[in-house]
Amino acid sequence: MKAEIISIGTEILLGHIVNTNAAYLSQRLAECGVDVFYHTTVGDNPARLSSALKQALGRSDIVITSGGLGPTVDDITTVTVANLTGRPLVLDKTILGNLKEYFRVRKHRFPPENIRQAYVPEGAKWIANNVGTAPGLIIEYEGKTITCLPGPPGELEPMFDRRIVPYIRKMTGCWTIRSRTIKTTGLAESQVNGMVKDLLNLKPPTTVGIYAKLKEVDLKIMAKAKDEKTAGRAIRKVEKKIRSRLKGYIFGCDDERLEDAVAGILAEKKQTIAVAESCTGGLLSNRLTDVSGSSKYFLMGLVAYSNPVKIDGLGVNEKTLKKYGAVSRQVALEMAKGIRVVAGSDIGLGITGIAGPTGGTRSKPVGLVYIALVINKRQVVKEFHFKGSRSEIKFQTSQAALDLIRKNL
Amino acid sequence: MKAEIISIGTEILLGHIVNTNAAYLSQRLAECGVDVFYHTTVGDNPARLSSALKQALGRSDIVITSGGLGPTVDDITTVTVANLTGRPLVLDKTILGNLKEYFRVRKHRFPPENIRQAYVPEGAKWIANNVGTAPGLIIEYEGKTITCLPGPPGELEPMFDRRIVPYIRKMTGCWTIRSRTIKTTGLAESQVNGMVKDLLNLKPPTTVGIYAKLKEVDLKIMAKAKDEKTAGRAIRKVEKKIRSRLKGYIFGCDDERLEDAVAGILAEKKQTIAVAESCTGGLLSNRLTDVSGSSKYFLMGLVAYSNPVKIDGLGVNEKTLKKYGAVSRQVALEMAKGIRVVAGSDIGLGITGIAGPTGGTRSKPVGLVYIALVINKRQVVKEFHFKGSRSEIKFQTSQAALDLIRKNL
Repeated sequence: MKAEIISIGTEILLGHIVNTNAAYLSQRLAECGVDVFYHTTVGDNPARLSSALKQALGRSDIVITSGGLGPTVDDITTVTVANLTGRPLVLDKTILGNLKEYFRVRKHRFPPENIRQAYVPEGAKWIANNVGTAPGLIIEYEGKTITCLPGPPGELEPMFDRRIVPYIRKMTGCWTIRSRTIKTTGLAESQVNGMVKDLLNLKPPTTVGIYAKLKEVDLKIMAKAKDEKTAGRAIRKVEKKIRSRLKGYIFGCDDERLEDAVAGILAEKKQTIAVAESCTGGLLSNRLTDVSGSSKYFLMGLVAYSNPVKIDGLGVNEKTLKKYGAVSRQVALEMAKGIRVVAGSDIGLGITGIAGPTGGTRSKPVGLVYIALVINKRQVVKEFHFKGSRSEIKFQTSQAALDLIRKNL
Repeated sequence: MKAEIISIGTEILLGHIVNTNAAYLSQRLAECGVDVFYHTTVGDNPARLSSALKQALGRSDIVITSGGLGPTVDDITTVTVANLTGRPLVLDKTILGNLKEYFRVRKHRFPPENIRQAYVPEGAKWIANNVGTAPGLIIEYEGKTITCLPGPPGELEPMFDRRIVPYIRKMTGCWTIRSRTIKTTGLAESQVNGMVKDLLNLKPPTTVGIYAKLKEVDLKIMAKAKDEKTAGRAIRKVEKKIRSRLKGYIFGCDDERLEDAVAGILAEKKQTIAVAESCTGGLLSNRLTDVSGSSKYFLMGLVAYSNPVKIDGLGVNEKTLKKYGAVSRQVALEMAKGIRVVAGSDIGLGITGIAGPTGGTRSKPVGLVYIALVINKRQVVKEFHFKGSRSEIKFQTSQAALDLIRKNL
């Protein structure tokens, strides 16, 4: 079964709001085993909406619209759908009653313009809105289905889940889609691509997609099957192959972030950590403490931007700073050792580098970063060269630091 | 002039990523006075991309695509555009050189699949990518223009601004749209709405929109005019009204972040700062150091998650911790005083609170936060009650802390 999403609203075309509804609906439709081949956005313009609807009905089984169900003259969805399907608009007394109740409860006078929301195309089913005023619509037309949902995500999402998902499940039978995302760091997209090329070419019902982020490459396995068990089996089969090929680079699955993975290892191994940051300016501490319960293993973070703080707060040797400069292998290591002593932690981590856009030199360009890790008697110092904006360099550095902890525990 | 945006990527149709590029491009196009009537998203499928391109070229002057320029077989944009416009793909030696340099600098072997990115449709102009590997493309075809940009926002945005905006400005001649965003913090959306209701009802050519974010409400003035000067005058007229009504709540304009505003004030007043964070876990330090040149005023950040660090690192009195608890007005103040002494800064700031989701009690619920600020002999301590997820509470706290600095300098 094929579905198509039409988002309606001039505010989307002006870039005033980001179209999160299309992503939400797509994700839910994929989970129902429905293919989505197109998203279209049109403004509050009846002619363009009508032509987008016609095109969508010509190539998909179900068309889902969002937006344009409000009480103002700009809200054109219901009228346009009624005209396109050749159905008169009729007043629904139950909806009108609900609307009046909505305003009564909120101690507002019933605004006369809201009466428009009680009119539905003849023969359409309507979906109650428990949050706002606009009811949703389901219209069956020439063997296809049009469903119209309101634009605010807080109204659209519960209506879709409560009424459209069961409707689609009934139409598609028992097909189900399961997915699993395997997350890696430390390899470029092209490298991961080269290692799992054959899997990326798999054809449905089981497919693998590759998604590159900053210092992270994800592989998402999707399996379509008659039941959960078969889908799960298909996923595990591909996952096993991916795991054997990408082993050390995999840090987690699905919603797990790199900081969650590191938190899990620290908790499991009962190790405490303290970090001394220069160029990341607190970002690594922030990510480590984004995990609930992090006070168990995170003892201390020190943002040592200036040399005096590196010397007084961390015990970095003044001679080392003079001889090698603040951005050096040697200073990173002394920072890691220093914070470990100050905090009394098992692990000490030191970061120094140049986040830019200014401050770079020929021999020490923007993006040069040293990260040092001290665990008991083990010491690791790594040199990195990152590209991008200041915040991108900061993020990549924090990502590399988390990965360094993960790999050395 | 009409433009149209085609987003390419199965990951968008699966709802794995939200299409922020369409919003970004739309906003920038509106600022150039270009009308956008459609957004379309298609997957990594040459036939569907080709038909979407044909349709777009039939109704718009310029078609902007995002995505599908990567090195893998899934990346179909260049080939599809070449086929549609009937141009052979030719190897561009400059691009190939750039690509090789890209990997050389990063000390990676050149992956053979990346050679695909050096092929461009004959006669196309290409746009250098200073962040990633994929060059952008500008192809003039039958009086229309197709421009292809890479999918990652960090690559697309600078390329669009640097090369496509000037290109469009040349095409559109003298109609211009100017905008100005006035940013406030400290008021709820409904409060701001009430204070500028009449301005929100303005009709084109000058309009005002309201946009609510976490602990921030923005007002965007847009003016369309024959020339920059007239547009600028229209904007200033409305801006003056907004400023007189929202005065103390306005922290900045346009791309200025709250941390930029604070950085500007600190630099102007030649004041240095040091911060001691508990529940924000380094986020405030991170935001303060997101500003380039922050080493001039930011002396030190200490993430003091545990009581021992509060006592040893900041000199918080053990008795205060026992009597009032770590999350208290008194401890926040001692943290602010302590970090100011340790760092030798003009300003000391202390934060303590409960970011949740666990750790709350009846008398000290999740979201309770104390922020203390010490400037010379002045001391301010504020109590806040935030709602939301762990990271939302952390962000709101950092926002309130920055605003506290701004207001008290």
